[in-house]
This record gives sequence, structure tokens and C-alpha cells, in this order.
Amino acid sequence: MSISYAIIGTGAIGGYYGGRLANAGKEVHFLFHTDYDYVTTHGLRVDSSNGDFYLPKVNAYNDTKDMPKCDVVFVCMKTVNNHILKDILPPILHRGTLIIPIQNGIGVEEDLEKMIPGNDIAGGMAFICSGKIGPGHINHQCYGGLTIAPYNFSDMSVVDKVISDCQDAGIDAKSAPYRLSRWKKSVWNIPFNGLTVVLNATTDKLLNDSTGELVRALMMEVINAANAIGTEEPLPVSFADEMINMTKVMTPYSPSMKLDYDFHRAMEIEYIYSRPVAEAKKHGAYMPMVSMLEKELRFLDSINMLDK
Amino acid sequence: MSISYAIIGTGAIGGYYGGRLANAGKEVHFLFHTDYDYVTTHGLRVDSSNGDFYLPKVNAYNDTKDMPKCDVVFVCMKTVNNHILKDILPPILHRGTLIIPIQNGIGVEEDLEKMIPGNDIAGGMAFICSGKIGPGHINHQCYGGLTIAPYNFSDMSVVDKVISDCQDAGIDAKSAPYRLSRWKKSVWNIPFNGLTVVLNATTDKLLNDSTGELVRALMMEVINAANAIGTEEPLPVSFADEMINMTKVMTPYSPSMKLDYDFHRAMEIEYIYSRPVAEAKKHGAYMPMVSMLEKELRFLDSINMLDK
Repeated sequence: MSISYAIIGTGAIGGYYGGRLANAGKEVHFLFHTDYDYVTTHGLRVDSSNGDFYLPKVNAYNDTKDMPKCDVVFVCMKTVNNHILKDILPPILHRGTLIIPIQNGIGVEEDLEKMIPGNDIAGGMAFICSGKIGPGHINHQCYGGLTIAPYNFSDMSVVDKVISDCQDAGIDAKSAPYRLSRWKKSVWNIPFNGLTVVLNATTDKLLNDSTGELVRALMMEVINAANAIGTEEPLPVSFADEMINMTKVMTPYSPSMKLDYDFHRAMEIEYIYSRPVAEAKKHGAYMPMVSMLEKELRFLDSINMLDK
Repeated sequence: MSISYAIIGTGAIGGYYGGRLANAGKEVHFLFHTDYDYVTTHGLRVDSSNGDFYLPKVNAYNDTKDMPKCDVVFVCMKTVNNHILKDILPPILHRGTLIIPIQNGIGVEEDLEKMIPGNDIAGGMAFICSGKIGPGHINHQCYGGLTIAPYNFSDMSVVDKVISDCQDAGIDAKSAPYRLSRWKKSVWNIPFNGLTVVLNATTDKLLNDSTGELVRALMMEVINAANAIGTEEPLPVSFADEMINMTKVMTPYSPSMKLDYDFHRAMEIEYIYSRPVAEAKKHGAYMPMVSMLEKELRFLDSINMLDK
């Protein structure tokens, strides 16, 4: 059995993962926005630390109404536009389509299920440094792992097939429990996305002195919240040190939120900050520092959008 | 009995209060730093919302060794230079000299007493919008109250005389309990000094939407800390609303820390943030948001001092 893929949003994430799958001969249909004309003429180029590749011809679309129904949909847009999914996804869904938002934050799957009830949904966590550096041109710098976490179903047959296809394509994919995966990703995302914006600094700079203590304190709030909510396995305190040590050996890095801010694009504050704070509160866990970072970012975002 | 005054640091604060006292005929000796030559030639000019005045000749010095011993010393420098006080104050002190740091933060008097034991010390809280806009030229925009709070003595005779002299000079001065006064001032100082720097905004902008909630949450941490430490009278929660409502009707304002940051001068992080956090902690009160703001400011300060 071979399965078909739709990539909704062919940028840093969708261009890389979809590109790798297409490059391995899988059936992949790509939705483009601004790059549609360019890619139909010039193809899709991926510079990658795991090996460059070039796809002269891809199944490119600029409207989901023109796309076939697919077995797996990778949603790879920024969450700030997720409200359009209820309109653009239905044309490519059949009853058994698995929707995988490869997106940041907490609450994405819950909202997606409300918007489009009836389909299987899995969280997608990308551990990757990748960027779009020109039309139809992706630059993948490092890492590249993909975790798929079933949200509202237990039959793993499609997930297993996706993981096997990814592995054929050179993507380090695996499955993992849903809440644990989402909250583990938040342990890194919450301090580094926000602080690189508020303090105008790359990740390495934030690990010095008192800012390093602040990063750790923010991580501890996330870990405490995750445990209050009840992840499938406990999230140990040592995971904060693991993330800090990993970041120390990373190339100095600007997370996606910092790039969004610098390019005057809307930041993903809702799903990366507001929803985790709200979810934690429901379970009696307070996140004062994360909540403060959220409010600082909302302020900066409102100013930043004025001179868009 | 008439008393003599020394003004240590003749800038926005010392130039205004010392200038008013001298203008009313009190004996005032001014220590200048960079403006000494200018003022000996051109005098001291104060533009003030309470009435402009000009002092063609003031008792100006550029070294405390040349100054007479005075009955009252107003310390009006930034706290970032307080370590020099142990060297520059002794020449102007007699046994009965009252030292009044008109400075921001928590812990100033404690450190001063350790540096220079044996003198009476009172906290000085200025409620004023004032700036130095040129050599020997002060611009006082609004407010101007001065609270004097005895720290290590109970005989009020000198304080009463200072208050009476201030009132003669058109300064709205009064005495108040020490811990209560210092912590009340911190309720305003802590949110507005730091957030105007971190978010690059004037006070009015910070009172909108979610940032307004953040201002209030920071104020609540300060009020809780004050009550844990035990101010002479309880500091009510309603004081936060009082400060917010006062700020709403103020002209959009950049607090002193914001000006220091913008002009690449060291910020008063130690006394405005680190000491209150440490004092609160000793009494079992945690200030996670204030502590976060402290760490953000330390980071920004370290970068800001690089391109001084």
C-alpha cells in the first residue's frame, strides 16, 4: 500500500519534509502561495546538511480545490493563519485522511478537531533548523527529526506507514505520546522563541549568566505545568538541563518567532504562549514568567505590526 | 537655628531641590562633576513648572575636600556610583550631619550605614519629573514632592527643620515611615522603569491591554513583598490601582532608567530590582516576574555597555 501526501504550506518545514518524500519517489502534492509560478517553472531546490537535492518538477498547486484527496496532510503553515484551514482543507480530505499539523505550540490539534471534526489528527513536532531563502528555495541547516504523536485515534497503521516513508526518504521520524511530545517541545520553544525577540539576541547569548538562570526558570514552569496537566509519562526536571546542554552546542540560532518579528510578520504567540498558560491554569499550575513573556510579546507584536 | 545643606550630584534631582533651597536664601553647597566650570561662570538655571528661576552665583565645588561640613547632605547621584560615597562624604560630615539619599530602590540606606557608620540617615523619595537638559540647566516638568523617611534615628528635630526649609522654598516636603515609603515608591518604580526599557515604550503605552495587566501583576508582587517584610502600616492592594490611575493621567513619560539606557549609561538594576527581590526572599516572598524583569535588564545592560 502506498499513500499520498499533501503539503499545506511549502516553506522551511513543508518544503524540506515534502521535498525529501518527493525526492524518494513518494506521491506528494504541494500547496504553494507566493512561490507557485516560480516553482511550476523552476522546480523546488533544497540545500541540506543531509545532502542537497533539486526537484525540477513537483506536483504544485495554488488552490486546494485543484488538488486530489490525499491520505496524509502535513499542515506546515504558521499557526497565525490556522483559521483558514476550515476552508482550505476539506477539498483534500477523505474519511481516512490523517491530518498532521507540523506546527509549534499547545492546542493546535484541539482547535483543528473542532474546525474539521471526523478526521484522525496527529501532532507533528519538527526538530529542525531550516529556512526559506528564496522562491522555491529551502535551506536546511541542521537537525531534521520529526515526531508524530496520535491525538484522537489509536490505530497506528497510517502513522507507521508515514514513519516508514520518512525513513525511506532520509527523515529521522518516530512516533511518541501526544501530550508528552507537545510539552517537551514547549520546554525549548517557550524560553527561546520569546527571549530572542524581547532581548534581541541569538540562543547562545541567552545562556550566559543571569539570562541562563531565566531560561531555566521558564523551562521549569513548563515542566511543572506539563506534570500538572498529566503527560503520558512524567516529564523530569532533568529535561531542562538536557535542552540547555543541547542548545549550548547548537550553532547560535534565531528561532522562527525571532525571524517572524524581524521580518514584521505576526508572531505565533497564541499557540506558543497563551494556550499553554491557559491549559496549565485549568490544572492549577501557574506560569507567572511565561505569562509575563506572553504579555511582553503581545506588546512588541502590536507595535511591530504597525510598521509592517 | 539655620542649617546648611550639601548637594552631592547637581543634576535633575539635586539641581532642582538644591536650587529651590538656595533660591529661598538657604545655605546650600553644590558638588558638580562635569558642569563645575560652566556653573562657576554662568550660574545655575532651573526651568520649572512651579516657576523658573536663575541663580547667577552658587556655592559650587568639584571636590568635597573643598566644601564645608554641612548639617544635611542630599545624595542625588545615581546609585550605580554609590561605592564612591565612602570616600567623598567624610570631608563634609560632622557628628550630627543627617545624610539623605534622594535615590531609587531598596537597600541604599543599609549600605550607606555600613560604609559610613555613626551618622543619621533618612531615605529621600522624590516624586518628580525632572531632567538636566544642558550644563547647569535643569528642566523640571511636573510634580516635585519629597518624602523624608528616618532610617536609623527617632529625633525628628533636623528632619522637621529640613521640611520647614523645603516648604519655605516651595517644595512639597513631608516625613513618612521608612519601609512603607521605600516600598510604596517601588510599586511604581519596578514596573515602569524596567518595562519602558525592555519594551522601548513610554508609560502611557504600557497601560494598554495585556501590558496593563502585567504592570498590575508586577505591582502586586511588590505589594505582597512589602507586606511580607512588614511595612510600618500595611500596604493595601488598592495602592496598585492608585498608582495606575495616577500614571494614566500623567504626560507620557520615560523614567530615569529608560533615559539611562537610551544614553548608554549604567542602569540602577541593583537597588531597584536585585535588592528588593533579595529582601523579599529573606521573608519568604517570591517575586518571579520582578526577578524576570531584573534578568532581562541585566542582559540588556551588558549589551548596552558594550557600545557605550
